[in-house]
Amino acid sequence: MSLRKRKGIAVVVSGFSGTGKGTLMRELMARYDNYSLSVSMTTRAPRKGEEHGRDYFFVTDEEFEELIASGGLLEHAGYCGHYYGTPKAFVEEKLEEGLDVILEIETQGALQIKKRYPEALLLFVMPPSIEELKHRLVGRGTETEEVIRERILQARDEAQGIEYYDSVIINDDLDVCVKELHDVIEAAHLAPFRNMEFIEEIKEQLYRE
Amino acid sequence: MSLRKRKGIAVVVSGFSGTGKGTLMRELMARYDNYSLSVSMTTRAPRKGEEHGRDYFFVTDEEFEELIASGGLLEHAGYCGHYYGTPKAFVEEKLEEGLDVILEIETQGALQIKKRYPEALLLFVMPPSIEELKHRLVGRGTETEEVIRERILQARDEAQGIEYYDSVIINDDLDVCVKELHDVIEAAHLAPFRNMEFIEEIKEQLYRE
Repeated sequence: MSLRKRKGIAVVVSGFSGTGKGTLMRELMARYDNYSLSVSMTTRAPRKGEEHGRDYFFVTDEEFEELIASGGLLEHAGYCGHYYGTPKAFVEEKLEEGLDVILEIETQGALQIKKRYPEALLLFVMPPSIEELKHRLVGRGTETEEVIRERILQARDEAQGIEYYDSVIINDDLDVCVKELHDVIEAAHLAPFRNMEFIEEIKEQLYRE
Repeated sequence: MSLRKRKGIAVVVSGFSGTGKGTLMRELMARYDNYSLSVSMTTRAPRKGEEHGRDYFFVTDEEFEELIASGGLLEHAGYCGHYYGTPKAFVEEKLEEGLDVILEIETQGALQIKKRYPEALLLFVMPPSIEELKHRLVGRGTETEEVIRERILQARDEAQGIEYYDSVIINDDLDVCVKELHDVIEAAHLAPFRNMEFIEEIKEQLYRE
């Protein structure tokens, strides 16, 4: 019996649009039982079928701004006149339950989190090549050429921060990629700074001898 | 087809005496084909059955000191009047072949390597508890109480450097531990700094669009 206690990790997942992050996250949740998906907060109105607490926490501008002021958000940003952010309390609650919390966030927000929360693990999902990325975006059949062009421009921005991530995972094959994501998170659990209690206990035992 | 090129990693494995590192390394080599064991260099005389280039590179004091002077050793130390060290050329040759090179080295040497070679991956193998460690040492049946005492004192020294390692792996069950070692090394291959060529290529492709 090991003395090691397992604590949850806040896992930030970013990646260009079209790299299949959504499917990856769903598969990860379905295959393993140590994960919880973070729920974002927004001031935009709920769309049809969206549920408070499942899809988003829907709040007013005042509520959102109060949370910003009190440091209750791990990251936040404005987009199309609305706020979007990650409530800290929800993430910390899940971490305390020992779950690894998955946060799907774009590069800017991811780097905000790393700054405020250096223990977070930052993973970047990449396509095997840009040709393949375009191929996938075209394959969806729903994207106009203009939208694809926008996605490429957006990807240029996102790509600037890759070096600050902990791991770069290539989504070439869904099955392989889900397993790789899981293995990388499991490996992160073995970092000494995530096991200080265990290490201190072993040291104490050595000096008790 | 991914553009990612896989480069070998220098993997330093340390751990208290009695944690089963030897068996772990043998199993790792037997189960996976991406590893090569580093061969140390020494000035002590070969023992019966030992082979130059397999067990050690046996050299003279002059040869060893020349290598120290020319920076040809990744780490070295004196022990019982003889030199022991890790020849850089051998490790680099294997890394260039794309193999991950396993170096079984104690803490002091491991930290020397990390300093000269920051890309190295440092893994520390721990027993699940010190009670279990003593149990294993006693179980060997070949160790006197004095030797066990010495091992504990030595473990106190080794334990000082654990925080500088990349991962702490607990050897509770051989099968699990070998797989964990392998997974941690695979995960390390995904660090951005080990994939800069691929990342730069993706960025270039984005700007070619």
